Amino acid sequence: MQPDLNKMMQEMAKAQQGMLKVQQELANATVEGTSGGGAVTVKCTGAMEFKSVKIKPEAVDPNDVGTLEDLVLMAVKDACLKAQQLGQQKMKPALGNLQLPPGLGF
Amino acid sequence: MQPDLNKMMQEMAKAQQGMLKVQQELANATVEGTSGGGAVTVKCTGAMEFKSVKIKPEAVDPNDVGTLEDLVLMAVKDACLKAQQLGQQKMKPALGNLQLPPGLGF
Repeated sequence: MQPDLNKMMQEMAKAQQGMLKVQQELANATVEGTSGGGAVTVKCTGAMEFKSVKIKPEAVDPNDVGTLEDLVLMAVKDACLKAQQLGQQKMKPALGNLQLPPGLGF
Repeated sequence: MQPDLNKMMQEMAKAQQGMLKVQQELANATVEGTSGGGAVTVKCTGAMEFKSVKIKPEAVDPNDVGTLEDLVLMAVKDACLKAQQLGQQKMKPALGNLQLPPGLGF
């Protein structure tokens, strides 16, 4: 009898199913990062695959490239943050009782 | 005696140590994505934390925002790809004999 192993394997199998489902959901979800009050908008999936960058013409000034670079960086970081937040939010319930050690899992 | 469980736990502990070390290495590593022959350069860590966006002034034309948007998107995607490649490259040896099921791990 190996009750601990059996229970552990069952929980891992359940968590695995849940995580695969969540990863699929994340790949199909879109999040949006913005900066400068909407001057730059970046879209990526919940799996952090970048899909589009939109820049308002008024933010495009060859004499002030530094501001544009900052706005783009902020929008990209904002999109990443939202993808991560969505991931954590969806992943928690999927893991159920399984406590993955740090370094493993999402 | 539970030889399977013991061996599994040992391998998981070893893999966990290795993955934590790799995650730290990735967070300290920098990768660079580019587009348009260097017109846009995006830096991020191996853990996909974006650090900088550089745009050459000649790519900044208010009358052709579409090209700039494409160049930025391509450079961001290129940086992501390089971070993922670095992660896979470093993660494989760290996992050792442990075969993580799809959905768990990196």
